[in-house]
Amino acid sequence: MKTRIAVAKGDGIGPEIMEAVLNIFEANEVPLEYEFVEMGKSYFDAGHSTGMTEAAKATIENLGILFKGPMETPKGKGVKSINVTARKVWNTYANQRDFRTLNGVQTVFSKAGIQINMTIIRENIEDTYGGIEHMITNDVAVGRRIITRPGSAQVIRYAFEMARRKGLRKLACGHKANIMKLTDGLFLETFYEIAKDYPEIQASDIIVDDLCMKLVSHPEMFQAIVLTNLQGDIVSDLCAGLVGGLGFAPSANIGDNISIFEAVHGTAPDIQGKNIANPTALLLSGISMLRFLGLTGHAATIENALLYTLEKGVHTGDFGDRATKSSNTTEFAECIIANL
Amino acid sequence: MKTRIAVAKGDGIGPEIMEAVLNIFEANEVPLEYEFVEMGKSYFDAGHSTGMTEAAKATIENLGILFKGPMETPKGKGVKSINVTARKVWNTYANQRDFRTLNGVQTVFSKAGIQINMTIIRENIEDTYGGIEHMITNDVAVGRRIITRPGSAQVIRYAFEMARRKGLRKLACGHKANIMKLTDGLFLETFYEIAKDYPEIQASDIIVDDLCMKLVSHPEMFQAIVLTNLQGDIVSDLCAGLVGGLGFAPSANIGDNISIFEAVHGTAPDIQGKNIANPTALLLSGISMLRFLGLTGHAATIENALLYTLEKGVHTGDFGDRATKSSNTTEFAECIIANL
Ligand SMILES: CC(C)[C@H](C(=O)O)[C@@H](O)C(=O)O
Ligand SMILES: CC(C)[C@H](C(=O)O)[C@@H](O)C(=O)O
Repeated sequence: MKTRIAVAKGDGIGPEIMEAVLNIFEANEVPLEYEFVEMGKSYFDAGHSTGMTEAAKATIENLGILFKGPMETPKGKGVKSINVTARKVWNTYANQRDFRTLNGVQTVFSKAGIQINMTIIRENIEDTYGGIEHMITNDVAVGRRIITRPGSAQVIRYAFEMARRKGLRKLACGHKANIMKLTDGLFLETFYEIAKDYPEIQASDIIVDDLCMKLVSHPEMFQAIVLTNLQGDIVSDLCAGLVGGLGFAPSANIGDNISIFEAVHGTAPDIQGKNIANPTALLLSGISMLRFLGLTGHAATIENALLYTLEKGVHTGDFGDRATKSSNTTEFAECIIANL
Repeated sequence: MKTRIAVAKGDGIGPEIMEAVLNIFEANEVPLEYEFVEMGKSYFDAGHSTGMTEAAKATIENLGILFKGPMETPKGKGVKSINVTARKVWNTYANQRDFRTLNGVQTVFSKAGIQINMTIIRENIEDTYGGIEHMITNDVAVGRRIITRPGSAQVIRYAFEMARRKGLRKLACGHKANIMKLTDGLFLETFYEIAKDYPEIQASDIIVDDLCMKLVSHPEMFQAIVLTNLQGDIVSDLCAGLVGGLGFAPSANIGDNISIFEAVHGTAPDIQGKNIANPTALLLSGISMLRFLGLTGHAATIENALLYTLEKGVHTGDFGDRATKSSNTTEFAECIIANL
């Protein structure tokens, strides 16, 4: 029996990299069926304030899983990112990004022989992402930062469950509770409260600035870190940089009813249609989705083929200096298929 | 004629590293006189809520310059860091931290041959550092983030003036105005407004998460970056990590009437009194102070002696793996003095 999922190809390079990924899935006979939904910048421009049609919304809510390409953020004051809106609309409270050293993808850290294997779990709804701001006078802007106990608890519990599932020994909470004593204090208190239910996992906390200092010198120290939304956003991108950039980082937005697996890099309009974009991040997100759906065999096979392909030095034009063979998007996907 | 400045030795390892630095100053006949002031954790414990006596406060306000060692943050809800209080009390609105590759201090980046030379200017008073937070219910915490036009303007103008003084070609503004459209939007708008007065400096802006990704892969891209308080705090520590940690990063808090030059690393109570602490960060802060006071010749001589000493592999025990000679604090200072 095939599982039906919703697919939004995304803007810019979205359709090309989605095609590459779905071709790989097909070659591996992944038992999925796709409903392509109308979502992205053009739907926003056509008057859908959430960036999707009513039909798309209904389909996604019906199927529970959305696999999506990158989407362009509409311009203009008061206008919100389609990605951020989607997270909020469906209460996908946990954002999970897995970062690891990929052989064949050269970085400052891989050159130094440092092996990275780390998960960042970011609270995905609260914090200043509520967008509650106003001007008191023309010269004074105030924003509100809201942290709730249930909002913190659901993402923290997810993080501990993830750590348990993966058999991790430790989970850290990143925060700035020395300054934001009540808001981050609440997050931190909730963290240690929930930690009691997971005695096998060593819980610790670290101030976010210190965390960033350690991440750029000893990233191998960390296995998993849970943070509030904005700090998590910053730390996630920092970690993406450690392993080669957003082009190599998967992203999953997990909620109780709906989960979104997406590429979080840009839409790269400058190279759109040129068949040179790197589908790795979207493929890694797709692999996370297969695991989430219990299709672990397919996930492992495709992941191994991807890792092997990267390690052999096959890559699209945007990989940097380690090129032994530069391929276009289609060739890269074919190479992965050949290595399945 | 000698300039009088206030000196607070600090807590933990503070007195030892301050002594090392003042010995180096003395050996170079730096024309300064010191008034040692009562400031630090023990004064807080003795009932001075700002962490300093009235006499200390008066002296500092009279002299205008405070050179300070690290200070321990008192514990307890509602209690503020002495460092943060000092910044606020005297409106030292700009926090400047200079980061550069130090030969002899090995990091992941130095091993990769990447040369870093970069200044972070951080707004030092506003943002969530106001500490305006409350609990709406036991489960909901709200913090307020305040950004003002004059508060932004003074630090941004300082950053452009610093760039002009140093002959830099470019200055970037880091922000998250795509999410915090009004608060960070105001900071960003002010940045481009003031940029008009500095046509020789190329002004650009970058979203803070993207900035962190680039800093860990291509830090050589940046010359100077100005940011709001908390984002600046995070980015400053990240950058410290790039060049070897807080033990190698100077910090200056600049205000119109009072400026503070300080070591921002911890007080390291575990090694207190052992004469093994690394005085480099405090010495670098002292060198910035000498430049600020117009003592540029002394600053250059001492800086060269420090750089030469580090390059020769002389260092205190905490430097990591590049040891050719491990010295205690006194020996390290004597070596610098010998190299003056
Ligand atoms: C595009 C932007 C609004 C978004 C965020 O800040 O969450 C992005 O940085 C991300 O991490 O997905
Ligand atoms: C100690 C702490 C309150 C302080 C800050 O957050 O500003 C520190 O991180 C710094 O950068 O000086």
